[in-house]
Amino acid sequence: MTAHWAYLGPEGTFTEQAARDLLSRDAGPAELVPCAGVSAALTALREGRVDAAIVPLENSVEGSVPLTHDELIHGEPLVIVGEAFVPVTFDLLVRPGTELSQVRTVGSHPHGHAQVRDWLATGLPHAEIVTTLSTAEAAAEVAAGRLDAAAAAPVAGARYGLVALARDIGLERDAVTRFVALQRPGPPPPPTGNDRSSFVLSVENRPGALLDVLTEITGRGVNMVRLESRPTRYRMGEYVFLVDVDSHLAVPSVREMVAALIRRSALLRWLGSYPRALGTNVPVPDFASSASYEAAAQQVSDLLGEYPA
Amino acid sequence: MTAHWAYLGPEGTFTEQAARDLLSRDAGPAELVPCAGVSAALTALREGRVDAAIVPLENSVEGSVPLTHDELIHGEPLVIVGEAFVPVTFDLLVRPGTELSQVRTVGSHPHGHAQVRDWLATGLPHAEIVTTLSTAEAAAEVAAGRLDAAAAAPVAGARYGLVALARDIGLERDAVTRFVALQRPGPPPPPTGNDRSSFVLSVENRPGALLDVLTEITGRGVNMVRLESRPTRYRMGEYVFLVDVDSHLAVPSVREMVAALIRRSALLRWLGSYPRALGTNVPVPDFASSASYEAAAQQVSDLLGEYPA
Repeated sequence: MTAHWAYLGPEGTFTEQAARDLLSRDAGPAELVPCAGVSAALTALREGRVDAAIVPLENSVEGSVPLTHDELIHGEPLVIVGEAFVPVTFDLLVRPGTELSQVRTVGSHPHGHAQVRDWLATGLPHAEIVTTLSTAEAAAEVAAGRLDAAAAAPVAGARYGLVALARDIGLERDAVTRFVALQRPGPPPPPTGNDRSSFVLSVENRPGALLDVLTEITGRGVNMVRLESRPTRYRMGEYVFLVDVDSHLAVPSVREMVAALIRRSALLRWLGSYPRALGTNVPVPDFASSASYEAAAQQVSDLLGEYPA
Repeated sequence: MTAHWAYLGPEGTFTEQAARDLLSRDAGPAELVPCAGVSAALTALREGRVDAAIVPLENSVEGSVPLTHDELIHGEPLVIVGEAFVPVTFDLLVRPGTELSQVRTVGSHPHGHAQVRDWLATGLPHAEIVTTLSTAEAAAEVAAGRLDAAAAAPVAGARYGLVALARDIGLERDAVTRFVALQRPGPPPPPTGNDRSSFVLSVENRPGALLDVLTEITGRGVNMVRLESRPTRYRMGEYVFLVDVDSHLAVPSVREMVAALIRRSALLRWLGSYPRALGTNVPVPDFASSASYEAAAQQVSDLLGEYPA
């Protein structure tokens, strides 16, 4: 059966690139369904009209995507089942045959314009800047003949039959956006040995509470790779934290850590374990290795005089 | 079958009092076997000639008993299966009919003399102080007519047919000695709900190592009631720590703690779980309760999509 994956449309966006990247790692056949926004994609998922949704989570230059974060923290629960990193590079896309001297209008999303402003000031000083709802929409307008050029994702060129007059014209050359594939709550994909886990921490308003909670994480040798505060929305000055750690819930150190966070009423929401798409987990200290957990559990069992079940 | 319990003799010492206290809580019949010293009692136990040994561990006034500690840390492994607290009170014991004015010699162990010196300076200013190997030996010498009086444990009076001319004549009125019953390594007695566990910590020589290890204990809500350093004997300036905690190894928070100490190579030696003889365990925080462990483990299991075994 063909699965349906929603993504932040229209066709030809960076999110479609992320979705194709994720699809290429997935075994089964799937059809991509463009949606008009993050919330629309997540609603389609929550209502069961699609099987997964791909949305942007954070950008190396601009930071977190607040809407996605708030959906993950406050919306009806969803879990992350995969991630993809897409370089945010902008090409100057035109209809085949258009020359640089013929470009009088350049369309892009406001974020795109901010990225390519410097290049345009030099390369097309007299061109008019036109704002569109997405970089892909700018590309579509070029294809339709209503704009001369679009500053858009490379994938939009292929999608709309355009060619690049100039490549990678953005300000930040190494900008990358992290996208996540979400599903309705369920068991995580099996561990691959290079996984990431995400969750939302809720920390009591008392001295030492955050330290207690962080000790439950790092004290177990679990590597915390991201800790980002978000307002609770309920009370000014109260925060929850989005946390990413290396490794998978099925790994003993993470499993024990999650149980400890639950016991401390610190786990507001579990967001899932999923294969890491970029980089590798930091090697765990010996005392946190799965083999070490197994050996220690056996020794304690021996001290208690327990026999194998 | 009658069990044999060795204790630090001779008959009529504080250790015999502790042994009788421990015996009164034990179900089966047992015979007490006096030994000439702590090491003799432990050797009898290690060699299988007795089933348990009762020895002094620490005193509220004088602190730990170094010989017992060193035996527990460095000797062939033994485990604590019970404890008893015996008030260290000294009576002035004489043969029936002896009056205070007739007392010219008073025998006691050096520790006893130190305790009763003030009382003797007032009550028997001209009496000669005679040192014996134990307070019980002093009592035996009185019974044999070779001394007039003994500053000894109340139990020695009954044992040697003596009577008390004065009671509780020691300097420290609330002094108490903690005795432990040791056995060869084996499963602990079952949890009673008010237990204590003891172990020896070995801490790496690096900054933060002791904090890491203490965090594994107190971070789990396990109440540490004693932390006492002892030299390693191997290198000047290196220490191991004798630790007592509330609760029993079979309790989840303690079990997880011990496994963590093993993983960190910090558990030099497990000394056992046994019923508390004095006071009660500090109430554990909610996050450390056994019910909380069970509920959290179930939730993690649910997150992983595991099914009941």
